[in-house]
Amino acid sequence: MSKPNIALIGLGLIGSSLGHALKKNGLAAHISGYARSAETRARAMEIGFVDSVHETAQEAVIDADVVFFNTPLSVIKSLAEDIIPGLKDNAILTDVGSVKACVLKELTPLLDGRIHFVPGHPIAGTEQSGPDAGFAELFEERWCILTPDENTSLIAVEEVSKLWRGMGSDVTFMDADHHDLVLAITSHLPHLIAYNIVGTAAQLENDTRSEVIKYSASGFRDFTRIASSDPIMWRDIFLSNKDAVLEMLGRFSEDLTALQAAIRRGDGRYLEDVFTRTRGIRDSIIEAGQDTDSPNFGRDK
Amino acid sequence: MSKPNIALIGLGLIGSSLGHALKKNGLAAHISGYARSAETRARAMEIGFVDSVHETAQEAVIDADVVFFNTPLSVIKSLAEDIIPGLKDNAILTDVGSVKACVLKELTPLLDGRIHFVPGHPIAGTEQSGPDAGFAELFEERWCILTPDENTSLIAVEEVSKLWRGMGSDVTFMDADHHDLVLAITSHLPHLIAYNIVGTAAQLENDTRSEVIKYSASGFRDFTRIASSDPIMWRDIFLSNKDAVLEMLGRFSEDLTALQAAIRRGDGRYLEDVFTRTRGIRDSIIEAGQDTDSPNFGRDK
Repeated sequence: MSKPNIALIGLGLIGSSLGHALKKNGLAAHISGYARSAETRARAMEIGFVDSVHETAQEAVIDADVVFFNTPLSVIKSLAEDIIPGLKDNAILTDVGSVKACVLKELTPLLDGRIHFVPGHPIAGTEQSGPDAGFAELFEERWCILTPDENTSLIAVEEVSKLWRGMGSDVTFMDADHHDLVLAITSHLPHLIAYNIVGTAAQLENDTRSEVIKYSASGFRDFTRIASSDPIMWRDIFLSNKDAVLEMLGRFSEDLTALQAAIRRGDGRYLEDVFTRTRGIRDSIIEAGQDTDSPNFGRDK
Repeated sequence: MSKPNIALIGLGLIGSSLGHALKKNGLAAHISGYARSAETRARAMEIGFVDSVHETAQEAVIDADVVFFNTPLSVIKSLAEDIIPGLKDNAILTDVGSVKACVLKELTPLLDGRIHFVPGHPIAGTEQSGPDAGFAELFEERWCILTPDENTSLIAVEEVSKLWRGMGSDVTFMDADHHDLVLAITSHLPHLIAYNIVGTAAQLENDTRSEVIKYSASGFRDFTRIASSDPIMWRDIFLSNKDAVLEMLGRFSEDLTALQAAIRRGDGRYLEDVFTRTRGIRDSIIEAGQDTDSPNFGRDK
């Protein structure tokens, strides 16, 4: 395949970053875009990360070789149903959703032999949303996990991999169920907990709440940043990855109950043990090059 | 008082930052330092954020006008017992601990009329520890909360306030119990939860754990940063602020159980409502100038 025509379905943070990154790296012959909101479509053209926008997903994909779904998980299936009949032979569908088994299960029966699907998940994002939030470097030096199954076309996998590598990502492969379990602990549970503690604070009496805001730099602020991520996207993630999230949440709650009991009975040794063990994980993350050991936590942003 | 002689008891992150900040702003005639470890004392002299170091706290405070306790909470009382008899008349003790009612309760009976105590808490820190972690700007444009009670000398409060203002802090006053309640939700609970989720991950099977590290950028990494803070310091905080932490933890757990139930029964509307409400708190923090709305979360560190 020479440079493909690419359709972006969904023009929010990820969709707009894909547009910027594909353009920056010269990876597409043409980038067409679709978003439900006319305002978003107009803004996308204004910013210029797409070459054309269309009022329906069907129109946006007519000439597409590769279609990226960059929408909340709950609408991918019906969008796929809408566009598959009008796609070119051998067109490739791919997505960027944070849960993979559900998408694979929903889309596989819709594929009619002419069309391929490669489930994908770039481990990249910010707490921002919308077409203005994207930037070309979002995927650089970030993992992109693809979760093809035994029926997935290898040619399609290679084509999608090439695009992600072209945008600077490290492509890796994983079983969809295993991906969902790993992400439940690395991403979904942290977001749930962040949403929860910010929600707890939001229910405090008015004057205490204003002090919480005033003194948020003492730790809370970092949770509010995570908890300001897109609500619809995250609603869909928890609904789509229910089993793995409930499993990890169960473990988390057991451990939290043990910490609570240690505080209640004044067991300093238990607390110290737990707090010391957790440092090892941090060191491994720094060793793995996934973060730096910078001493100015929360100060430079 | 002209420039005071200042003694720093404890030369870790906060102690070393105090030394740097006092020197940078020319606030002390002499800075003496004490740390339990000979290595830390030697390093402090090498870095140069103190003018002298001493093998005992008693020696370090002989000429001091103001003494800062920058140690874990659990050792403040016995250090105060050791040094008070040898202090000059009208010397001022102050501290930087994250819990205030306990320190006030412990130190008040030890004051013999000659000596003043001003409880303090700078809302500043990083996840780093030790004498190399400090920097002069740590307290700049940060709140410093003082929690004097009705017996505290106003002159001593003014003297301590002047030092914090001189280091660039905004000084504010609060009742000690109320401080402990506000900090329980803004700081202590976030740290407990971060320690807990990292602890939960640390107990995963080996191969899953290595993937957790590999894909930590998806949210988990930010928790590991918080959870790499000093274990002894945090052990003492939870033991010293037991009631307020257990109260806030109780509320947090109730709210988490409700979210868990919503996920289990597939109640997307409940999830969306909670996730939307939390954005308001974030907006208030940005409005209050306590954070910026930067779009590159977790990428520049």
